Amino acid sequence: MIIVMKPEAKEKQLKEVCSVLDSLDLGIHISKGAQVTIIGVIGDKRKLSDVPLELMPGVDKLVPIVESYKLASKTFKPESSVVSIDGIEVGGKEIVMMGGPCAIESREQLIEVGDAVKASGAQFLRGGAYKPRTSPYSFQGLEEEGLKYMREVKERTGLKIVTEVISQKSVEIAEKYVDMFQIGARNMQNFYLLREVGKTKKPVLLKRGLSATIDEWINAAEYIMSEGNYNVVLCERGIRTFETATRNTLDISAIPVVKSKTHLPIIVDPSHASGKWEYVLPLSRAAIAAGADGLIVEVHPNPRCAVSDGPQSLTPEKFSTLCDSVKKMVPLIDRTFNID
Amino acid sequence: MIIVMKPEAKEKQLKEVCSVLDSLDLGIHISKGAQVTIIGVIGDKRKLSDVPLELMPGVDKLVPIVESYKLASKTFKPESSVVSIDGIEVGGKEIVMMGGPCAIESREQLIEVGDAVKASGAQFLRGGAYKPRTSPYSFQGLEEEGLKYMREVKERTGLKIVTEVISQKSVEIAEKYVDMFQIGARNMQNFYLLREVGKTKKPVLLKRGLSATIDEWINAAEYIMSEGNYNVVLCERGIRTFETATRNTLDISAIPVVKSKTHLPIIVDPSHASGKWEYVLPLSRAAIAAGADGLIVEVHPNPRCAVSDGPQSLTPEKFSTLCDSVKKMVPLIDRTFNID
Amino acid sequence: MIIVMKPEAKEKQLKEVCSVLDSLDLGIHISKGAQVTIIGVIGDKRKLSDVPLELMPGVDKLVPIVESYKLASKTFKPESSVVSIDGIEVGGKEIVMMGGPCAIESREQLIEVGDAVKASGAQFLRGGAYKPRTSPYSFQGLEEEGLKYMREVKERTGLKIVTEVISQKSVEIAEKYVDMFQIGARNMQNFYLLREVGKTKKPVLLKRGLSATIDEWINAAEYIMSEGNYNVVLCERGIRTFETATRNTLDISAIPVVKSKTHLPIIVDPSHASGKWEYVLPLSRAAIAAGADGLIVEVHPNPRCAVSDGPQSLTPEKFSTLCDSVKKMVPLIDRTFNID
Amino acid sequence: MIIVMKPEAKEKQLKEVCSVLDSLDLGIHISKGAQVTIIGVIGDKRKLSDVPLELMPGVDKLVPIVESYKLASKTFKPESSVVSIDGIEVGGKEIVMMGGPCAIESREQLIEVGDAVKASGAQFLRGGAYKPRTSPYSFQGLEEEGLKYMREVKERTGLKIVTEVISQKSVEIAEKYVDMFQIGARNMQNFYLLREVGKTKKPVLLKRGLSATIDEWINAAEYIMSEGNYNVVLCERGIRTFETATRNTLDISAIPVVKSKTHLPIIVDPSHASGKWEYVLPLSRAAIAAGADGLIVEVHPNPRCAVSDGPQSLTPEKFSTLCDSVKKMVPLIDRTFNID
Repeated sequence: MIIVMKPEAKEKQLKEVCSVLDSLDLGIHISKGAQVTIIGVIGDKRKLSDVPLELMPGVDKLVPIVESYKLASKTFKPESSVVSIDGIEVGGKEIVMMGGPCAIESREQLIEVGDAVKASGAQFLRGGAYKPRTSPYSFQGLEEEGLKYMREVKERTGLKIVTEVISQKSVEIAEKYVDMFQIGARNMQNFYLLREVGKTKKPVLLKRGLSATIDEWINAAEYIMSEGNYNVVLCERGIRTFETATRNTLDISAIPVVKSKTHLPIIVDPSHASGKWEYVLPLSRAAIAAGADGLIVEVHPNPRCAVSDGPQSLTPEKFSTLCDSVKKMVPLIDRTFNID
Repeated sequence: MIIVMKPEAKEKQLKEVCSVLDSLDLGIHISKGAQVTIIGVIGDKRKLSDVPLELMPGVDKLVPIVESYKLASKTFKPESSVVSIDGIEVGGKEIVMMGGPCAIESREQLIEVGDAVKASGAQFLRGGAYKPRTSPYSFQGLEEEGLKYMREVKERTGLKIVTEVISQKSVEIAEKYVDMFQIGARNMQNFYLLREVGKTKKPVLLKRGLSATIDEWINAAEYIMSEGNYNVVLCERGIRTFETATRNTLDISAIPVVKSKTHLPIIVDPSHASGKWEYVLPLSRAAIAAGADGLIVEVHPNPRCAVSDGPQSLTPEKFSTLCDSVKKMVPLIDRTFNID
Repeated sequence: MIIVMKPEAKEKQLKEVCSVLDSLDLGIHISKGAQVTIIGVIGDKRKLSDVPLELMPGVDKLVPIVESYKLASKTFKPESSVVSIDGIEVGGKEIVMMGGPCAIESREQLIEVGDAVKASGAQFLRGGAYKPRTSPYSFQGLEEEGLKYMREVKERTGLKIVTEVISQKSVEIAEKYVDMFQIGARNMQNFYLLREVGKTKKPVLLKRGLSATIDEWINAAEYIMSEGNYNVVLCERGIRTFETATRNTLDISAIPVVKSKTHLPIIVDPSHASGKWEYVLPLSRAAIAAGADGLIVEVHPNPRCAVSDGPQSLTPEKFSTLCDSVKKMVPLIDRTFNID
Repeated sequence: MIIVMKPEAKEKQLKEVCSVLDSLDLGIHISKGAQVTIIGVIGDKRKLSDVPLELMPGVDKLVPIVESYKLASKTFKPESSVVSIDGIEVGGKEIVMMGGPCAIESREQLIEVGDAVKASGAQFLRGGAYKPRTSPYSFQGLEEEGLKYMREVKERTGLKIVTEVISQKSVEIAEKYVDMFQIGARNMQNFYLLREVGKTKKPVLLKRGLSATIDEWINAAEYIMSEGNYNVVLCERGIRTFETATRNTLDISAIPVVKSKTHLPIIVDPSHASGKWEYVLPLSRAAIAAGADGLIVEVHPNPRCAVSDGPQSLTPEKFSTLCDSVKKMVPLIDRTFNID
């Protein structure tokens, strides 16, 4: 942390700031420039998190030098983490494919999708039982009944299952059925929920918030990890920008940036990022080429009849084409594709 | 709702779309243009919310014509709503002032602030007992103990009290103590929480999400209202943009836009919008001049010692100056200021 | 400027960075922290503008401490500047009102608007002779003929005149007719054009680019000033965000931010910011309340027939109401309104 | 174009709107819905571009149905365009690689880079002779002298050359030396300049503006094409968002979106998009995987000594690695790589 004093700051004000730092057992390094004096603060900057130094007389601004997260930081743990989910490794050499419907609609639908994504090479079935929808008048999910269907598909196919949780109660129920919790974009800073999934030790897929910076996103992972649950996989799913041709803007650069800042794995959701199935294949290829550890894709047996996100869902046939395309790419980037 | 067909769409495809609309008992109006054919859909568009028509062969895109919310819409209820909170009206002629600390830190702190904001003319005390913080290592709030202090200040001063809730459990506890719930920006699309506060009949202050469009924000209000709780007050608190000179960008235009789309009252939070106390006075004046029904401002007896949001908090003296400034403005806009 | 070294940087790498700084005659202040070492650079940071220090081995990043502009900076010139335009002062005690059509369409139109805005209390007539339009098929302006009409209105009414320039040639022609050049938002970083208007000594109204940060905007002013033309007035006209309810998002906070960073005057364009005439009055009031030095507003005798920006233009009657509203506000903020 | 009437619009108002459309020889299709009446307008919507119908009594809003550009539209010309630049085809089967320094600094520098990028397989040398810089105190380019060096490298290597133009004068000079003009992001809506390059028949590389929507960008291409110059290549180079970890946010989705809306080729600039050389390789791979027709990359023999954009420049060795990586990818996407 660096404290920048105002050009007109007085010697007395500088001393007062130093005495506060002193009282917190922080080291001090003063540097007088041509225009301004700056103070380098040495020690654990978390001691300062609740002290508004920028309000002290003579202080112009604070400039953070190191990031505010620790457990998630690559500085803290330089080697990449591999998260194991009931035997499937995310962040290892194998590219992970997750497919399934936005919303679980019926037992038949889920079995059909499960069989199809399994056949294409996916290791995970995704499916929403608790649906956060923009309008209160849209379908809100089958809840526990849907989770039972997921479990049935798991037993039938061996696919691991991942579902979104939206409240303490849904965490309690889903914990009995699924292999991985998903925290949706709209709940990325629902810190209460982050702590709840942190207290379980079940792996968590943490989607990036629509307007979250990469640092805020990693801080959300830190919340989960600070409760002792280190099994966090990040998921880039598009951010909100001024462009309206796509539902969101896939931040493809987030992949190498995340890899440089944290040891956690990262996968990409091209379906929510684009909002249109036509763009899912090119964006999936781009994500894998940029270094993503996997993909999570919406697949529906009959998108035209989907109660949610139909326009961005692939048919099982198109998902199969996508998997084939990824399979061909993996040798180029020294990765592998699932082969049972 | 308008359905735009592709330039190359065939007559047969047009008929198929019409037969789906027919099966939903929706009226149809076909208009053949020079380049494309469009279909006007007549009837309750919510029937279409779960039918992905854009996937039908020959369909190019859907264009919504009327908004997706109803209870919150000005079309549905043209006259402005006044929300009464234990006798204080928000959205009426009187400008409403809410002041208090970001986080409740101690009984003494809260009593001092309460007395001060009361003396300046505020009708509400704000204060956080459950704090959503970006870093898990920051102070997280006094919880129920803090709510007891709020209640004590209410009894002492007559101020109405408003606090943020972040989970079902906090709703249950806070319901016993406070006059108004606040839903924070990061929870604006925590639909589960919206339904919970909707089920109580207690007034709700609904902050705009950092990247929420005005339509999404009103849809969040619709969630609360669809549970039968019509006592919703909107709060503009800045949106996320590329500009970094301020913490967020106050969307001042949201005031007249909201007034044109919904009958609900709207207040402004200049503290979170700017992130710097120096800008709170000019932004407050701007908000009142633009037609806001009130302000919610962070006030701390000693901002330099605040555990949260110190840099954007006013001292009681500066809050008093702000209130005086608002008081002088109200005759110009045909409003009044609190006079006990 | 601060240079942050990587956690793993070696002593030798630190020395190499220092020797580069040394060779540029810059002072050095080293501060070793718990995790990283930082170097404070003392002296004129412009010496570093063309030296990519962040590429030296061991360097993590550079953190600028002071802004990159000088002539426009409040540090350089703490007292506010007043720009005099043929006798009218912008940035002084009097609020400045500029009104007129987006595009000059005919002599009659301009005379009618000129008489009207003069009668309402405006000191300036605005009008576009060279029109930058998004589509090449829209009306592109009357060019020199339009400037002659402006001159005629000036002689008739005494209004000062301001018009947009878009190229070296238009600068040469307009210089003969107008009192103030306008640089449009789309040309804010057309550095060639900035230099051209800088070489004349005529006052310049510099609109903020749609996606320009406040610092980039002030740097654009610095371009003009670095050619010796200090008569720059800034104009906030809305930035591009994700919100689509308004044409742009008026960044009302830019007013106090600009006032804290630079000595230059700032006015506001509520017409382009909102894109709808209904919002022009509330936004104008907000701008004045927040401390703007004036307003520039689109006025058209018959907005329904305007060839450009009709939807955001006021009728002369509405502009008169707006001026009356501003006139009533000025005593509250210790300003005055034009009284001939 | 669809005209949406207000819920309370009167029959008389509807008739007035229709009579305006009638007078413009436009067809009319009225559709009365449950809440509102809409009018479908049939015919060339450009007739309406200067008529602000939204101001007519009873009109709520206009909804455009077809895009405002024509020559650039895929509807107008469904097959992809191939732009030939002195014998090199952009938009054909072969991936096009452009490499070179941000700024031309000296004859030696340019020869060294030219030889290197040629050896790696690039077909184009890029280099800036006229540099638009944010600060007026940064290096502004060698101007015509730099263009002579480019020409010399062309003669030596056979590389085609592309350079940015910033004014009418620079167009006149550069026309004598280069094979392709570049319009920079900050000049994308400098419509005067667009017309100037449109009047020449030389190919144009049109960079996307920092805050330009894809539709505005294609409209900028339309400006050039409307002057008779159809040789336009689009270049995605990152847009401005709230994320600060990268200089800009590469909008990777723009590639398939552009391919669906226009017949023009599109290449990607990963250097400006990311601002850091570490991210150039993954972003380049992503761009090619997503369907880009080529890449334009900053290459400098010694980035640490570059006067501009050093941090985002590749060394010749790294550019060679990048080319090898692209070469390996091309068979997967049915493209080819340059082989002399």
